[in-house]
Amino acid sequence: MQEKVILAYSGGLDTTAIIPWLQENFGYDVVCCCIDCGQGNELDGLEERAKLSGASKLYIEDLVDDFCDNYIMPCVKANAVYENKYLLGTSMARPAIAKRLVEIARKEGATAICHGATGKGNDQIRFELGIKALAPDLKIIAPWRMTDVWTMQSREDEIEYCKQHGIHLPFSADNSYSRDRNLWHISHEGLELEDPAQEPNYDHLLVLGVRPEKAPDEGEYVTMTFEKGIPTSVNGEAMKVSDVIRKLNELGGRHGIGIVDIVENRVVGMKSRGVYETPGGTILMEAHQQLEELVLDRATMEVKRDMAGKLAQIVYEGKWFTPLREAIGAFIDSTQEYVTGEVKFKLYKGNIIKAGTTSPYSLYSESLASFTTGDLYDHHDADGFITLFGLPLKVRAMKMAELEAAETEK
Amino acid sequence: MQEKVILAYSGGLDTTAIIPWLQENFGYDVVCCCIDCGQGNELDGLEERAKLSGASKLYIEDLVDDFCDNYIMPCVKANAVYENKYLLGTSMARPAIAKRLVEIARKEGATAICHGATGKGNDQIRFELGIKALAPDLKIIAPWRMTDVWTMQSREDEIEYCKQHGIHLPFSADNSYSRDRNLWHISHEGLELEDPAQEPNYDHLLVLGVRPEKAPDEGEYVTMTFEKGIPTSVNGEAMKVSDVIRKLNELGGRHGIGIVDIVENRVVGMKSRGVYETPGGTILMEAHQQLEELVLDRATMEVKRDMAGKLAQIVYEGKWFTPLREAIGAFIDSTQEYVTGEVKFKLYKGNIIKAGTTSPYSLYSESLASFTTGDLYDHHDADGFITLFGLPLKVRAMKMAELEAAETEK
Amino acid sequence: MQEKVILAYSGGLDTTAIIPWLQENFGYDVVCCCIDCGQGNELDGLEERAKLSGASKLYIEDLVDDFCDNYIMPCVKANAVYENKYLLGTSMARPAIAKRLVEIARKEGATAICHGATGKGNDQIRFELGIKALAPDLKIIAPWRMTDVWTMQSREDEIEYCKQHGIHLPFSADNSYSRDRNLWHISHEGLELEDPAQEPNYDHLLVLGVRPEKAPDEGEYVTMTFEKGIPTSVNGEAMKVSDVIRKLNELGGRHGIGIVDIVENRVVGMKSRGVYETPGGTILMEAHQQLEELVLDRATMEVKRDMAGKLAQIVYEGKWFTPLREAIGAFIDSTQEYVTGEVKFKLYKGNIIKAGTTSPYSLYSESLASFTTGDLYDHHDADGFITLFGLPLKVRAMKMAELEAAETEK
Amino acid sequence: MQEKVILAYSGGLDTTAIIPWLQENFGYDVVCCCIDCGQGNELDGLEERAKLSGASKLYIEDLVDDFCDNYIMPCVKANAVYENKYLLGTSMARPAIAKRLVEIARKEGATAICHGATGKGNDQIRFELGIKALAPDLKIIAPWRMTDVWTMQSREDEIEYCKQHGIHLPFSADNSYSRDRNLWHISHEGLELEDPAQEPNYDHLLVLGVRPEKAPDEGEYVTMTFEKGIPTSVNGEAMKVSDVIRKLNELGGRHGIGIVDIVENRVVGMKSRGVYETPGGTILMEAHQQLEELVLDRATMEVKRDMAGKLAQIVYEGKWFTPLREAIGAFIDSTQEYVTGEVKFKLYKGNIIKAGTTSPYSLYSESLASFTTGDLYDHHDADGFITLFGLPLKVRAMKMAELEAAETEK
Repeated sequence: MQEKVILAYSGGLDTTAIIPWLQENFGYDVVCCCIDCGQGNELDGLEERAKLSGASKLYIEDLVDDFCDNYIMPCVKANAVYENKYLLGTSMARPAIAKRLVEIARKEGATAICHGATGKGNDQIRFELGIKALAPDLKIIAPWRMTDVWTMQSREDEIEYCKQHGIHLPFSADNSYSRDRNLWHISHEGLELEDPAQEPNYDHLLVLGVRPEKAPDEGEYVTMTFEKGIPTSVNGEAMKVSDVIRKLNELGGRHGIGIVDIVENRVVGMKSRGVYETPGGTILMEAHQQLEELVLDRATMEVKRDMAGKLAQIVYEGKWFTPLREAIGAFIDSTQEYVTGEVKFKLYKGNIIKAGTTSPYSLYSESLASFTTGDLYDHHDADGFITLFGLPLKVRAMKMAELEAAETEK
Repeated sequence: MQEKVILAYSGGLDTTAIIPWLQENFGYDVVCCCIDCGQGNELDGLEERAKLSGASKLYIEDLVDDFCDNYIMPCVKANAVYENKYLLGTSMARPAIAKRLVEIARKEGATAICHGATGKGNDQIRFELGIKALAPDLKIIAPWRMTDVWTMQSREDEIEYCKQHGIHLPFSADNSYSRDRNLWHISHEGLELEDPAQEPNYDHLLVLGVRPEKAPDEGEYVTMTFEKGIPTSVNGEAMKVSDVIRKLNELGGRHGIGIVDIVENRVVGMKSRGVYETPGGTILMEAHQQLEELVLDRATMEVKRDMAGKLAQIVYEGKWFTPLREAIGAFIDSTQEYVTGEVKFKLYKGNIIKAGTTSPYSLYSESLASFTTGDLYDHHDADGFITLFGLPLKVRAMKMAELEAAETEK
Repeated sequence: MQEKVILAYSGGLDTTAIIPWLQENFGYDVVCCCIDCGQGNELDGLEERAKLSGASKLYIEDLVDDFCDNYIMPCVKANAVYENKYLLGTSMARPAIAKRLVEIARKEGATAICHGATGKGNDQIRFELGIKALAPDLKIIAPWRMTDVWTMQSREDEIEYCKQHGIHLPFSADNSYSRDRNLWHISHEGLELEDPAQEPNYDHLLVLGVRPEKAPDEGEYVTMTFEKGIPTSVNGEAMKVSDVIRKLNELGGRHGIGIVDIVENRVVGMKSRGVYETPGGTILMEAHQQLEELVLDRATMEVKRDMAGKLAQIVYEGKWFTPLREAIGAFIDSTQEYVTGEVKFKLYKGNIIKAGTTSPYSLYSESLASFTTGDLYDHHDADGFITLFGLPLKVRAMKMAELEAAETEK
Repeated sequence: MQEKVILAYSGGLDTTAIIPWLQENFGYDVVCCCIDCGQGNELDGLEERAKLSGASKLYIEDLVDDFCDNYIMPCVKANAVYENKYLLGTSMARPAIAKRLVEIARKEGATAICHGATGKGNDQIRFELGIKALAPDLKIIAPWRMTDVWTMQSREDEIEYCKQHGIHLPFSADNSYSRDRNLWHISHEGLELEDPAQEPNYDHLLVLGVRPEKAPDEGEYVTMTFEKGIPTSVNGEAMKVSDVIRKLNELGGRHGIGIVDIVENRVVGMKSRGVYETPGGTILMEAHQQLEELVLDRATMEVKRDMAGKLAQIVYEGKWFTPLREAIGAFIDSTQEYVTGEVKFKLYKGNIIKAGTTSPYSLYSESLASFTTGDLYDHHDADGFITLFGLPLKVRAMKMAELEAAETEK
């Protein structure tokens, strides 16, 4: 019986050329799977295209809510950011996709999964670690690393290969950035970005919004509510998480929010330079932190910050389906119990400007913070506190002074 | 013989009233010390004022370069930020001041130091831990905590008390924010800020710059160079650190940079709300990180991030003169060996937008980052890497599948 | 109406003298509460004693299982050890006791809780933070810190004070160590221990077991099973956690296990020196770790180690009833899902010597660990792994070599 | 011209067989290098042996003091231990060896370095990362991973291959553990150890000492002094670090100290089981910590513990010549400034029992630790301290109570 392979299919040139290549070189029955994480591309005609290219079947899977609820939200609750800047847009999507690919592989009785990620990037790792963790028995095929069998060197080669295999589809000549998009973000690499000395050509590059310079001269106030760390409404309108992100993308894109230019360290050991647009995500994470300021105590905030760093690392590295990611998730969820309240802020030309925060669980106490003395706080208490808080320093200083004095005497 | 006390003196009403109070209640000879960390206040006439109030002597100490080189720079090199937002402006100044007060106390043969910090804030801790660590034998007098002896309840009381003691000086009625300023920043507390639900009244509040909304419509490019983590020039003009900060304050203030509205956790156990303006500091730290992205390896960046968090905590807590702060400093300095290069960015209405980074020690390699295969990287290598990198996940998944299968069989 | 106070009562001289003192100085109705955490003291006659001393009521509360299940086990699962040595015996008991005191205070409608902890130790903090967190409205009375009202300076003073108030009880002259005991451990302070240069007088000091030198010449094998991190049997006999600890105390005490001599850092800012005996606890934590070695992956072990350090800190500091302790608990519990299996070890004169470990969830694979090549591991994979794993080092070295060469050329 | 390769040569069968193999398959001129890190093997006749096997030259390099001073001591100062148990004996030696191999390669003008580490272990990584970091241009040859060219499958194959190439040397049939030895430790793998359920056969296995059961019935007191974290004398006799370790090995071996049985996580993604003997090293690290207890403050100890964990990770992973290892080293060195003093302990059947510690820089204060009130500490201070230390808990509890009350009212 012919073995089946599940191909992560985008409809683009690369993954289209893989269809006949899998058949020709391995004799596979190719089942395509186009997974929608909100990348906003044209799904019309995709089925025809896949079939025409030789696929026996095409799945079109809407993963948007799963992606938002089960992958994005755990990272937002943690405030997980990689290397201070990257909001993990692609990193969070890969395990979601890998999980769905495995589910379809099981349903179809497939023995292999094929993806089109390159051999120098992080995504191959994220896809493959996801698959290994969920289905260690499945074979993984990564054509771009199989340079003995995958001999196409360029877009032109791929187009020619398609033609030879009877696939006559219109593929645009590609001279643009290398991009990855989903509901959370779009990433850009290549062209002028390959030289970190060069400023990005933003007018050419941006997709989800405008530069701050082109944003409206009038700022715009936004309110959001959260319940246990989950956003529940924007501007008074209740909505599910994916709609919150859509709404914030629209607002953030308009006001030039969330454009990041970064030289980052890939898992595979090299630095790369990219530009990310995360308009809604940037707002969502800022708003979430704005609320946490009011609700979380100091010690929790401090350890949570460390855990967020850890989480960002492992999510970036593709280690989503691991005991450590689950344990960190349990920690984070516990901290979110009282992250409930309302935040208000103004969007203005790239800025998110706080404009007031409230929560029933606010730990801020106006009477305590102000300069008066009350029931909770007697200024004398500070005497005792400072004496003990500073005791180790003082003991040490006295010891040193004593030694110095003894030294001088000699 | 009359004992001497060194009074940290600002020339304001509070510390002026303390002069006769120290004489009357303790019989001290009061030596005033006005320490200039770049707060920009009027020093003319200060000596006359102090003498008139009963001080036997006034020191006016210019600490600006010491503050910049020995307190600010270690924190900038670390990228130390408290609770994600606060650039530690006041926290870094207090130990610098404490050290100078101790030096003068030694020179004058004083037995005590007096400061005017309140009993609910962090500054009392920072002053006193600094003094304890450097001169554990000196007595510390904190009038605002001595509510039995310090009986003045209001500004009016203080003015009245001054008059009774022959001090007839013009003190303005004060109905403004509670502020602390130095070369690095200005902080604002009080008035509408005491309610976190309220938006700050920025037009009333801001001192060092304008809101993004009022910044020029034209952005402005800036270049900076660094050597071993220390800024050495701005826009091609070599200058010392304090002048770099002055220059960046001017640029940042003009373009609405570095305004932060935060609810933070004080050392003394309560939340407080404040607004900070740190125009130059915000730019300096961003520029420094922009360069580090190119020069530091991933592992170093990760651990350095944790160390920065630790450093921010202990500096915030006033633990400057401690073995831990020194050890962290040694760590940070070691990482700065190659943080040398040039950064370019654009300031525009609150935004710092990267516009190119170069360094002789850049670890970015264009040939490595791009999609081609070269000497350093064979796409096949990724196969082996992923196999081993993912091995723990796969072994675990296999073990679980095996157990499940055994379970099913029963 | 007369206000009620709940007194944490041990039956000893200190807490007995507090009874009339509370009545005399504050007019309280004193309800005594003797909480049994397994300290093994004589409870017979305690009620008579309390009543005779003027208490209106005595509660004797058996907290042993609550203490073991809800305070000890979370710390064992984490492997929480303070400053590398201290197994937190007293630290874990204090919040358990505080919680019960609060429950009784609520039941009795009391307005205050009184404890006999001294003013220099950690226990006052642990009691009071526990009470504050659970019942912020209750007044806390700490006689030993109230030096204005509590004027007794010595044991003799206390005995005299008791006599004056009609309490004629036999109290031994006390010239021993200061101790705290519960099911988990006993701590010793004072006498020769106050000088860290002196060796402890173990033959005088030890209570729960013998020195290694006096242990049997024959070692003894022990097996234990765990389910999800919880011990479930010893030597094949199923038992609840408290009985596991009792059994291990007996075994460990006999074989000289778990004696620790430490100079530790108290919360109140000073170093103190003590000896702890934790015979069963030491075995339990070692056995638990022995199993974890087999079951936890590397990344989880590493982060769990950091979390254990954090947990030890906050438990030591009395911050049990805090969001951070709960969040860390959630993290730890998540890691224990598969900590199930059997461990065998030998006890011999102070040593716990591993003698074999098994688990259905073992991640150890003999075929993988041995030197042969199999399905899971091709020796060539290591080539690729090392190339990428070492890439950052190599790129850096090349860059440095290049710069050096350029330098030489000049 | 014939290219030269430097071969890390032990004189054993494996590396002897590599000599003709390198000549035959690559045409190399083979320069052997036997590096002595204190493994205690027979160096007599080694030169003859190497020459006889076809090497053009043999270096015998005594690295013992370099290894002790520059690799072991930085880890001892940090108290770096991998996964709670492994004292990094092999991990610290590999970079030392790699550095010397590179130095000889430069001196000889060699173009490659060859080592005999296997394809499943950590050592290949440590050797190769060391070489890459120091000489990125050198080719690295790892015969055991080159399964296409290196076709010998067994010891017998290697002996036969040697014979075919005219090498007639006596090689023992090997049926023992796989071992690595240097001055610091010896590791054992293989045989019964491959099954973690089995107890090690210690009587067969141990090399550097005896089991606790076979140690003398009389314990032995030892004193040691340290200066800035470096051991300077044992039992009153001043000696260099390598002699300290030799002396402690003798003492520790005799008393059954430092035998560890561990299932550890290798870098290459699998668990392995081994037994380590580190008699002197275990004593040295314990003694060092015994002194640190007295000298380091709490905050420094806590962060140092985290840094030690990091250091152990990266040393285990072979990342010695990296900026991060250097930065951590700078941190650690800073903490050792005052780690000077004397420790006394008793060795008895596997136990290291503290018997007194003194230091001129001791932060322990007997008057402060005891229960009396003195200048430094007023019991009332604890009131204020606890009030502020517990303030966040209390504020939170009040807020929750308030919300609950409001809830109940409804």
